[in-house]
Amino acid sequence: MSPASTAPGTFFLVVGPSGAGKDTLMSGAREALADAPYVFARRVITRPAGAPGEDHDAETEAGFAARAAAGEFLLTWQAHGLSYGLPGQLLAELAAGRHVVANGSRATVEALAQRLPSLVVVEISAPPEVLAQRIAGRGREDHAQILARLQRQVDPAPPGILRQTVANDSDTATGIARLLAVLRAPLQHCVVRAAPVETGEEAVAYAHPRHWAAGTRLRLRAATGAMVDVRIHHWPDGGHDASPWLALPAGLRQRLGSAQTVQALRLLAPASRPLWSRKLRGERLPAHQYQAILQDAVDGRYSTTELTTLLVSITGGLDAEETLALAQARSRMARRISWDEPMVVDKHSLGGVPGSRITPIVVPIVAAWGLAMPKASSRAITSAAGTADTMALLANVDLDGEAVRRCVRQARACIAWNGRISHSVIDEVMNRITRPYGLETAHWSVASILSKKAIAGVTHLVVDVPYGPYAKQQTLEQAQQLCRLFEQVGQGLGMQVRALATDGSQPIGRGIGPALEVRDIRQVLAGDPQAPQDLRAKALLFAAHLLSFDPRLGEVDVALQKATELLDSGAAQAALARIIAAQGPPQVEAAPCAEVLTWHASQAGVISQVDGWAIAGLARTAGAPAHPGAGLDLLCRVGERVQSGQALLRVHAASAAHLELVGAELQALASPVVLVGH
Amino acid sequence: MSPASTAPGTFFLVVGPSGAGKDTLMSGAREALADAPYVFARRVITRPAGAPGEDHDAETEAGFAARAAAGEFLLTWQAHGLSYGLPGQLLAELAAGRHVVANGSRATVEALAQRLPSLVVVEISAPPEVLAQRIAGRGREDHAQILARLQRQVDPAPPGILRQTVANDSDTATGIARLLAVLRAPLQHCVVRAAPVETGEEAVAYAHPRHWAAGTRLRLRAATGAMVDVRIHHWPDGGHDASPWLALPAGLRQRLGSAQTVQALRLLAPASRPLWSRKLRGERLPAHQYQAILQDAVDGRYSTTELTTLLVSITGGLDAEETLALAQARSRMARRISWDEPMVVDKHSLGGVPGSRITPIVVPIVAAWGLAMPKASSRAITSAAGTADTMALLANVDLDGEAVRRCVRQARACIAWNGRISHSVIDEVMNRITRPYGLETAHWSVASILSKKAIAGVTHLVVDVPYGPYAKQQTLEQAQQLCRLFEQVGQGLGMQVRALATDGSQPIGRGIGPALEVRDIRQVLAGDPQAPQDLRAKALLFAAHLLSFDPRLGEVDVALQKATELLDSGAAQAALARIIAAQGPPQVEAAPCAEVLTWHASQAGVISQVDGWAIAGLARTAGAPAHPGAGLDLLCRVGERVQSGQALLRVHAASAAHLELVGAELQALASPVVLVGH
Repeated sequence: MSPASTAPGTFFLVVGPSGAGKDTLMSGAREALADAPYVFARRVITRPAGAPGEDHDAETEAGFAARAAAGEFLLTWQAHGLSYGLPGQLLAELAAGRHVVANGSRATVEALAQRLPSLVVVEISAPPEVLAQRIAGRGREDHAQILARLQRQVDPAPPGILRQTVANDSDTATGIARLLAVLRAPLQHCVVRAAPVETGEEAVAYAHPRHWAAGTRLRLRAATGAMVDVRIHHWPDGGHDASPWLALPAGLRQRLGSAQTVQALRLLAPASRPLWSRKLRGERLPAHQYQAILQDAVDGRYSTTELTTLLVSITGGLDAEETLALAQARSRMARRISWDEPMVVDKHSLGGVPGSRITPIVVPIVAAWGLAMPKASSRAITSAAGTADTMALLANVDLDGEAVRRCVRQARACIAWNGRISHSVIDEVMNRITRPYGLETAHWSVASILSKKAIAGVTHLVVDVPYGPYAKQQTLEQAQQLCRLFEQVGQGLGMQVRALATDGSQPIGRGIGPALEVRDIRQVLAGDPQAPQDLRAKALLFAAHLLSFDPRLGEVDVALQKATELLDSGAAQAALARIIAAQGPPQVEAAPCAEVLTWHASQAGVISQVDGWAIAGLARTAGAPAHPGAGLDLLCRVGERVQSGQALLRVHAASAAHLELVGAELQALASPVVLVGH
Repeated sequence: MSPASTAPGTFFLVVGPSGAGKDTLMSGAREALADAPYVFARRVITRPAGAPGEDHDAETEAGFAARAAAGEFLLTWQAHGLSYGLPGQLLAELAAGRHVVANGSRATVEALAQRLPSLVVVEISAPPEVLAQRIAGRGREDHAQILARLQRQVDPAPPGILRQTVANDSDTATGIARLLAVLRAPLQHCVVRAAPVETGEEAVAYAHPRHWAAGTRLRLRAATGAMVDVRIHHWPDGGHDASPWLALPAGLRQRLGSAQTVQALRLLAPASRPLWSRKLRGERLPAHQYQAILQDAVDGRYSTTELTTLLVSITGGLDAEETLALAQARSRMARRISWDEPMVVDKHSLGGVPGSRITPIVVPIVAAWGLAMPKASSRAITSAAGTADTMALLANVDLDGEAVRRCVRQARACIAWNGRISHSVIDEVMNRITRPYGLETAHWSVASILSKKAIAGVTHLVVDVPYGPYAKQQTLEQAQQLCRLFEQVGQGLGMQVRALATDGSQPIGRGIGPALEVRDIRQVLAGDPQAPQDLRAKALLFAAHLLSFDPRLGEVDVALQKATELLDSGAAQAALARIIAAQGPPQVEAAPCAEVLTWHASQAGVISQVDGWAIAGLARTAGAPAHPGAGLDLLCRVGERVQSGQALLRVHAASAAHLELVGAELQALASPVVLVGH
């Protein structure tokens, strides 16, 4: 770009559900911006002129088709039985440095993004009850149409597109002021420079004082769609070039794919701050107010300090009712995946119990019966293996949304890694503060888990809530309380949820670590008499609860009989083979590692306790999950009588060096297994 | 400093009240640091060897005196009837780069600071009940001695000295670990470089990655005692010199007095975090736990994000009982000023009412009666004048503690500017977040105000709580509730507090702005019939309540008679003259400005409302308080019948330009004074 060229204007595509008040706010903004370099696009619509709603260029179907054929449009689309077109000359306005504001449709966002140098999607939203009222008052649609529109959930712009939201939940003047604030923050096109500093976890960009005030917060977007939010510090000696520059530390440049230029969107003050203040004063908030707060959080309008404070204060006093409100708010923030299925079942475990790898057994049983079960699982964070780590030795788990659908079509189910599902910025901040601040997060987690399941289109869910000295819930009573909360909030979200408090006092299954767990799973599915019976029993229990959602089975004991039959007949094993075929072959293969160390009982006695944390720690020291063949087999169970010298556990280490570390850890530990009596 | 020279070691002076566990923790730390370059000083004490307590060099009185005369000691002091000495050879240990840990006394801190290149005071603390228990168990002192010791409040190191606190409120191992964390963070002596950036409100220092991890938080101290807390970002190209450097933005260098080198103390993780987590979970905390949290905050151990979150969560749910706990905690964090007086009286106003400058009338009346009233007042922040701004036209208000004492001796009272009292970092953060987060801060303010009064040695306090549409409290009921809270918490702190809900619906007095207020005050004290009667009446009311604390008067109506007598007889006027003589002449003089604009009634009618915010705004536009002669006279009162063309207010502007702005503001305003009827 030569220094003399004009920076292109910003294209603001204003979208939002019917009744959100787009036309009113845009008309107010147009008036306020009359003297500023803004162009409000008139759309060409095949609707008679003078019809209520926006001021448009009326065109006949035939005339529209002719103009489209003549290449007059930047973009055309169909909606509600009408044809819409954006005039092509808007591109010239942008090139001349004027900003364009256009009433648009979500469906056009991706197509526009490909054609425009600088697009910002402006989402106008309003609480559902306000929407319904406004639409009814318009008298253009009948009740069925209104309902159909309202059932379209808020549908955020696709990832990689810059967006701003305008909450039109107050009076019109406030709504217009908020839209104006957004329109007055057009994109800046900035040259990226290298800042010779490293700012640790803080995302700081250095700018010339004339370009932005210190402390300004920006969302930067590279042409690839990669984005980061930064805070501005000043570098006055950097020079005041004609086009603004931003000097970024190496880490940020890397996250932006080493882009040479970025678009910078100024992050605005959160309109939801007064709502949050109410929460701080101890008031309860309804779902749509939580949604406004969380939307501002996702839009980067709260600083890290504010977001931390906000989350800490929200988690401080959640009861069941507010947990539901929060879950509803979160479930409305993304488009619900729709399945062409009467039932979509799922299971979720709160985890924390080593082994207990029942998912790769449960899913095939359920698939063998024919229910749809598109399961997304995590990789290990602090444990020796996550379901995705173990499944990755059986099949390709790196599936996108389309691949998941194909698996369900071909095999009724899949077990995919959930890493492709972009993490929520809110959960990210939450995870960062949970431990140091010692937050009680059970209510928050219930809202987070269930809203994600709702968005995934799950209709029936079974939740595993283990309790025990090494589990997240210490007592049966705590676990049962949490189970009731899961079921209550699930019902409020329109999901059937059954939550089971399960014994988490010791590891379940023999192997701990991906390859060893795969061996256990294969044994259970093959009906091998060597198979760990506790793993088999727990898998059958969860499969039975899932099958019992099917009205053809209904009762859990009937379903348990069916699940056992599907397992013992080999039907489940065959179903897993179909699932693996659909997902594709694994990208990694691993057998249990050959470096082995066996730990023996130093005396005879009865096993009184198995330290779950120590067991998981040993498996990680052995190399799991980074080395999928590493881990350990637990060879004893609580209550079992063992002889002096009997093998209690056998560690498979990734290397001789790993084995040495395991040996040292076993020496240092009091004991991972407690023996009492003689 | 040549690159080859060894950086001097750090002198850790360990202090703390008896029973805090100094000896135990130091002995544990000595063991842990046996192989590290640390020297634990043996003190020379005139106590027989083998007596319980620390391991010391026993010396006779005569032997001690001889060694002192021979210059063997770095420092000597007396305590509990014994002589203590620190050996002089410790200086050589420091010079050789070894760190010294010495059991010390608070009284020695300032003398040591002058002799040592790098001193850190380590304060070991424990909750009062733990202290009492430990001391009693020691059996070395009788009950009276224990009480005498406990009544010595925590007495922080003087300003300008680096300190670390160790809360010994858990088991011994935890206490030792905390002391070790402190001792393992010796001072770094750093060369200051200029960083060519500006970081806005964030205090960032740039360092080489080998010196500190990114995100490390440091407290920097210049030789003058100036300190700032910074967070580390990395500047890898800055070079890895032998002695560490820190590159600071210009603002920070200025705050450090352009020091060429600074001492850097690494700020540690707050030990009080679990207490705060309890508060987050809705538990109530006792005073000593609040104290532990606030102490960590003052010590810079919480980041700004954490401090914000902490304060927001604390203010969320304070009731009267917790407000007292918080006030007690804060009042124990500084040494209580002790006055050789049976009563020390004070008044405090929550402010927000323009004019209402009663303090310079109340204080002389009280002084004329003979009660001690060392009053500290603020300058304006958002108003047209603070009491200190007005008093500054009558006398020197920039008094230090010693000058305040002298004034009380000479004139029984003073009115000083409170700017010399260092602001609390906690209140600073609090003020920054109060408005944007919409916090309810009444409870917090009560704790803050009353704890400061307690520290100032006040025994009897009257609080002015105005209510009205433009005051902080909207209704009489709200004001009365707050009054009860003041009195309840005051009682808990051992103070007599009377809080009065007063009519704050319109300005009080005629003048608004320093010079105009001085004129009103002089009129009231001189018994001028022109004096504003509302100002006189309010001043007499507050004087009466203060005088009634004196048992010789007792009843408020008796005291009111006495106050009126003192005012009308000229005794108060004479008392003000004595106060002014004691404080010294004013450093600024100002008469009301000559640029005048009078605003008249446009019609006849009755004044129904005076907009306090608009009035204060006009006075500030006129130039107050920066120009002390600027301001306005309000010439009408609510309920008064006025004629068309009657003067309602007269503005005195600092310049013709100011006057023009005032004119424009008066045009733009609906009206600062509302007229109804005819």
